[in-house]
Amino acid sequence: MHSHLEFFKIVNGELENLKINKSPENLYEPIKYVIKSGGKRIRPILTLMSCELFGGDYKNALNAALGIEIFHNFTLLHDDMMDSSETRRGFPTVHIKWDPNIALLSGDAMSVISYKYIASSPVNTNKIIKTFSDTALSICEGQQYDMDFEKVNNIDEKQYLNMINLKTAVLIACSLKVGALTAEADKKDCENIYKFGQNLGLAFQLQDDLLDVYGDIKKTGKNIGDDIISNKKTFLLINALKEAEGTQRKELNRLLSLEKFDNTEKIKAVKAIFDEINVKEYTQKHINGLFNDAYDSFQKLSVPDNNKTKILAFVEILKNRLF
Amino acid sequence: MHSHLEFFKIVNGELENLKINKSPENLYEPIKYVIKSGGKRIRPILTLMSCELFGGDYKNALNAALGIEIFHNFTLLHDDMMDSSETRRGFPTVHIKWDPNIALLSGDAMSVISYKYIASSPVNTNKIIKTFSDTALSICEGQQYDMDFEKVNNIDEKQYLNMINLKTAVLIACSLKVGALTAEADKKDCENIYKFGQNLGLAFQLQDDLLDVYGDIKKTGKNIGDDIISNKKTFLLINALKEAEGTQRKELNRLLSLEKFDNTEKIKAVKAIFDEINVKEYTQKHINGLFNDAYDSFQKLSVPDNNKTKILAFVEILKNRLF
Repeated sequence: MHSHLEFFKIVNGELENLKINKSPENLYEPIKYVIKSGGKRIRPILTLMSCELFGGDYKNALNAALGIEIFHNFTLLHDDMMDSSETRRGFPTVHIKWDPNIALLSGDAMSVISYKYIASSPVNTNKIIKTFSDTALSICEGQQYDMDFEKVNNIDEKQYLNMINLKTAVLIACSLKVGALTAEADKKDCENIYKFGQNLGLAFQLQDDLLDVYGDIKKTGKNIGDDIISNKKTFLLINALKEAEGTQRKELNRLLSLEKFDNTEKIKAVKAIFDEINVKEYTQKHINGLFNDAYDSFQKLSVPDNNKTKILAFVEILKNRLF
Repeated sequence: MHSHLEFFKIVNGELENLKINKSPENLYEPIKYVIKSGGKRIRPILTLMSCELFGGDYKNALNAALGIEIFHNFTLLHDDMMDSSETRRGFPTVHIKWDPNIALLSGDAMSVISYKYIASSPVNTNKIIKTFSDTALSICEGQQYDMDFEKVNNIDEKQYLNMINLKTAVLIACSLKVGALTAEADKKDCENIYKFGQNLGLAFQLQDDLLDVYGDIKKTGKNIGDDIISNKKTFLLINALKEAEGTQRKELNRLLSLEKFDNTEKIKAVKAIFDEINVKEYTQKHINGLFNDAYDSFQKLSVPDNNKTKILAFVEILKNRLF
């Protein structure tokens, strides 16, 4: 069985050598640029590890793993257009480096290429395509809810969790399930590995939300407070908006409505309210609950304990943001 | 066996009743809007007719036919964004009626939905998915060449024919081949029906080019000279640019470089040059050659003559722009 680092190398090696047409250059160069611009390759690694977890040969899961990673990168490409993001992983985004039309079309082509890989899965092909398509559509739904939520104020926790489930968690779940399907795991195991991934995905996203405010830039590599600056409706803000009362509530609304402000001061002031309401503890508790649910599903898998070591180690590393 | 009009009704009936999620509305309303906004449904009709041509049950080809039509409409949606077109079939385009982000994302979702239908083909599923994916990628390539060509002057006939082959002809070819695959036609027949469709597709596009200049608005429903006004590099203009000499050439270049002009005068002047060089005859000859090549492939099909009547009648109608 392989470790996540071994699979990381295998996936990157495959992505370096993808058979992608050369011409027209304006279609294919952006695709190569996006695919090779890095990333942790978490999803394809999970597919390959899940395949081995269930006793399958990872080589049979390679095409699907690559298809999932290409699709994930396609969604980032188009999301960056929708968000007008100028950089991704430290590089200019495609619509900036080339232009919006090229970004639009090369994204469309990436979506097709991802299907070509998914459809080349040698085992359980039809089930894998179906799982993947359902997931792909969910991701579109999640992205639309995310954009819709920017325009409304009263998003509740349930709506938010539904959105991040669709936008991010189901692809983690799908990655694992596709590995299981490739190993011809039985239906119950496929369902449990899916639930495992779904709860992991939700937990990771809430961790992201938490680390934006309470993280350590040295560990996360991300600026602190970006979500606060942009009034992003994270799990923390939604919870604070629900719980804040009286002057607290007035102050929070005032901070959210500021058009000009000093970033550091706004972050400090919003964080102070979060602290008063114990948003951090509430979120952490929710995250712990999700991890517990994830492990409950994992425990139900009918695989030898020996098989579980590598993937559990990887999840632990992801949980602690050490990868 | 069914006529094209019967299949037109069947396809429209299916498209009216597509099972498409309701929520989020901003994702799915634009999709329904695009799918129901009309169109001749030529591609799905060809899929169904091709299936019956080879003795298959058209019902087995319905999902693939719908997938192809949804994909075609998806490409129109994103093409309209790239071209900044404000209307399509007399209705505002999605990026105008909603906004560019919604148009981008609902297009992405349409692409996934088309795959869901394609992958639900009950016969020869894997071959159909492969044929479709190769075609979908070709369409992206064709669209990129089309955009690239807007920025360069010296496009030759071969490059142009390659572009329209990728952008439009291969989807006609794919539509027919998918019908044949559903009817489990043999390899040689699949190849020949594909070539038939490819040459038909090229001929139809060159007819489009020709009718822009020499058409009858009453018959085509399209304004005359739109391509001339926008300096679109059609088969006619490419040919004229190759053949024009001396003062003719200078005059043509002058007309193409005008920034302000009277539409009617420009159309008249460019058309006069086309006439001098016999562009119309040259193009018509090329179109006839393509139709002949198409019929040659069709003749080679190993199906009873009785089976050929309906589809040949439909092609004749398309050829004469009566549908």
